[in-house]
Amino acid sequence: YGRFGLDWNQANDGLPNNTDEADAAGEPSVSDAEETSITSRFRLTFDASTETDGGVTVGGRIRAQAESRDGVAGVANWSAPQFHVAYGGLRVNVGNIWGAIDSAPGLYLNTTSVGTGIDGMGFNSLAIGNGFNWDTFTSAGNGRNGVEAIYSVGGFTGHISYSKQNDLYESDGTDTGPVAAATRVEGEERTAVMLSYSFGDYFVTGAYQDSNVVANDELGFFAVGGDFGQFGATVSYGTTDASDSITLAGDVELGAASTIVAWVNSADQNTAAGRDGTAFGINYEYDLGGGVTFVAGAVSSHADDNENSVQAGLHFSF
Amino acid sequence: YGRFGLDWNQANDGLPNNTDEADAAGEPSVSDAEETSITSRFRLTFDASTETDGGVTVGGRIRAQAESRDGVAGVANWSAPQFHVAYGGLRVNVGNIWGAIDSAPGLYLNTTSVGTGIDGMGFNSLAIGNGFNWDTFTSAGNGRNGVEAIYSVGGFTGHISYSKQNDLYESDGTDTGPVAAATRVEGEERTAVMLSYSFGDYFVTGAYQDSNVVANDELGFFAVGGDFGQFGATVSYGTTDASDSITLAGDVELGAASTIVAWVNSADQNTAAGRDGTAFGINYEYDLGGGVTFVAGAVSSHADDNENSVQAGLHFSF
Amino acid sequence: YGRFGLDWNQANDGLPNNTDEADAAGEPSVSDAEETSITSRFRLTFDASTETDGGVTVGGRIRAQAESRDGVAGVANWSAPQFHVAYGGLRVNVGNIWGAIDSAPGLYLNTTSVGTGIDGMGFNSLAIGNGFNWDTFTSAGNGRNGVEAIYSVGGFTGHISYSKQNDLYESDGTDTGPVAAATRVEGEERTAVMLSYSFGDYFVTGAYQDSNVVANDELGFFAVGGDFGQFGATVSYGTTDASDSITLAGDVELGAASTIVAWVNSADQNTAAGRDGTAFGINYEYDLGGGVTFVAGAVSSHADDNENSVQAGLHFSF
Repeated sequence: YGRFGLDWNQANDGLPNNTDEADAAGEPSVSDAEETSITSRFRLTFDASTETDGGVTVGGRIRAQAESRDGVAGVANWSAPQFHVAYGGLRVNVGNIWGAIDSAPGLYLNTTSVGTGIDGMGFNSLAIGNGFNWDTFTSAGNGRNGVEAIYSVGGFTGHISYSKQNDLYESDGTDTGPVAAATRVEGEERTAVMLSYSFGDYFVTGAYQDSNVVANDELGFFAVGGDFGQFGATVSYGTTDASDSITLAGDVELGAASTIVAWVNSADQNTAAGRDGTAFGINYEYDLGGGVTFVAGAVSSHADDNENSVQAGLHFSF
Repeated sequence: YGRFGLDWNQANDGLPNNTDEADAAGEPSVSDAEETSITSRFRLTFDASTETDGGVTVGGRIRAQAESRDGVAGVANWSAPQFHVAYGGLRVNVGNIWGAIDSAPGLYLNTTSVGTGIDGMGFNSLAIGNGFNWDTFTSAGNGRNGVEAIYSVGGFTGHISYSKQNDLYESDGTDTGPVAAATRVEGEERTAVMLSYSFGDYFVTGAYQDSNVVANDELGFFAVGGDFGQFGATVSYGTTDASDSITLAGDVELGAASTIVAWVNSADQNTAAGRDGTAFGINYEYDLGGGVTFVAGAVSSHADDNENSVQAGLHFSF
Repeated sequence: YGRFGLDWNQANDGLPNNTDEADAAGEPSVSDAEETSITSRFRLTFDASTETDGGVTVGGRIRAQAESRDGVAGVANWSAPQFHVAYGGLRVNVGNIWGAIDSAPGLYLNTTSVGTGIDGMGFNSLAIGNGFNWDTFTSAGNGRNGVEAIYSVGGFTGHISYSKQNDLYESDGTDTGPVAAATRVEGEERTAVMLSYSFGDYFVTGAYQDSNVVANDELGFFAVGGDFGQFGATVSYGTTDASDSITLAGDVELGAASTIVAWVNSADQNTAAGRDGTAFGINYEYDLGGGVTFVAGAVSSHADDNENSVQAGLHFSF
């Protein structure tokens, strides 16, 4: 799909911050985005699948995606591939997996960006934070190599995912002999499980992630939601090492083509890195037909200063 | 499309020049092209567009392009995307725009490479120089983020384009606090306009670019041209900060499948960086059918020494 | 196509080796693969060709390929393109060529990976070594720029290929004047020829490469093979600067869908870098239908320690 629009973001006000590398004389490298800039994304998805004589589906997917944000244009980048084997209600993915946490119903908003506005606008509505410190399909990078199994029957879905990175060691630059065992930095290992049940227009879901990295360990998510005619509502609770938070999101259909989604998140930080306070946002979409949607959004983030941003633009499917 | 052929270029004679970085001992990095080498390009274009219920076209384009020049083979690289919204005679592009200057009729030659030979051979025929210091669609890089509007009615076309890069600042390497405001290097801001009118087999066009970078400011272009049966001719005048020049280009159709384009450019430099003197070239094309064209070209550039080059090869469309 | 599976490799036992660059403090960079990891590849091929009015085919090919090996996930990378012109039994390729040595019948195994298991498992069956120091189509990198001609008539095929890299020089970092001629490192120039003749179910082939790099010079290959109903066998002999070796490979069809390929290679080293001793392997494939194949392989390499590896997984065509 493609999407493009204008982004006005107070967080781009003022001078940018120093980085941890000094520039060579006369070659400045810290980019200062204007408050108003173009935000866009162009995503190509290559899907291939086939079916064996025994009725098992075997396939793969890869993406190339280009993004422009904060005044910096980007070329497209390839993703790593995801492979799958599916039979009946069971599907096993290998490679660039979706992740059990990321697949929990009620985690993302029911909008074209699955957040607010054109590009998600920071995804402050997520009850488990916007650090994306769980496994998720990476559309323009190598992501993490994982394995996951998803089983669906009736309204029930069970999902378990596992990923592991190689350990890293320091090199002494000699090009000879093995590295020193004491310099080991353990590669992150994540195991996550998600259970979900939907009955009629209602659903309930719970998810949990275990990791050997403290900041990503004991991540929990719980949500319930339902549709009541033209209204819908979801309550979700998330707990992470950095903060705990609760999100209330509601959507309403206006006439034949318009949808409004509004949300508020209240967070309590457990560590200095965590989000604290209240964030809220509103997203408006109008279906123009032919797969084209007009999208506008406004967000007030958890930040104390320069917390406001507004976006408007078009999203088109292909 | 694809194109490939042999390039013989006197400018590759002799030893290459030093670069501004010294090599590590025993790891030479300056490549010395032979006078004769393979020149080729392979371009994939991904276009997607849809139409809303109101008849507005919304779409996007992205490219992947591989080039081999001067004995160095290259892999394909993605471009940044261009998005468009079009209705009737009006089209608005966002992202990797075409640019008003680059779209002026009479700027490029009427050949498969829009220059001479297989790969354009330096584009010395352009009256505004071959520095490409104006906005243009970048096929294998991130280009510049811009916005442009094009309006066509009858034989008239008006085109206005605007692009802006972020300001840059130097980092002090501390990773804390904002950068020093005094280290600001202003991002380039370009505004360009092009007007063109065609009547029967004749056209007239004028274009102008304003920039906050002196070398790219006050760039002007003017051209008139026409077709007289099997003959055609274009006169174009360009003025830039570096040099002013005038180009005369003529083409003649020989029989059913052959076309010859010949051109001469005379330039007066305003600064030491500008082109000075006379360049000329000739391009021959033979249509082999099925979208395959045999192309041969010869160019004598503005340079005082080693100014000659010759190319021949095939261009095929897909 | 896509392929993915599990790799168990003794060579990943123990600590990895130091590299020739020391890590910055606290930023280890040497990755330690587990003995068991995911191996996968996803390959997209873009082919384009057209035919002139005179019946000459003109076309091109480019690839994007992603691989995951030894616990490191990779994104897709583009290749450089190959262009071709073909008429009757003659085909000329330009750019990312196949190479005469690499095209010799009997060099690779008759399996989905053209080696053993999912990813070839080191290609220890090749009689000319697994250094790939001959021209071959590079699927995810820029490869080498070459030209080759292939002529086939009846059961006879003749193939000659040539590639040349630019010379390299050291830069003194001054950014002025030509480089010092004495720092020249000559670019590699390879010329290879392959002749092959097949008659009924038998074939015989010979190939030879000349290079200005000693390690890649005087590379020779000779093979004979045949099919005898459900059995097949190939004997191949290779001689390189580093080692001489002989490979015996046999395949047998079991029932309608299963194939077993077994091979043994015996090498004598000429230099310390060469392979020495015996390697052997076995590959099992079961056709699941729909282009999906179950593949399993086991290899014992030429190494003295940790020489065993096993792989199993799926290969699917698209």
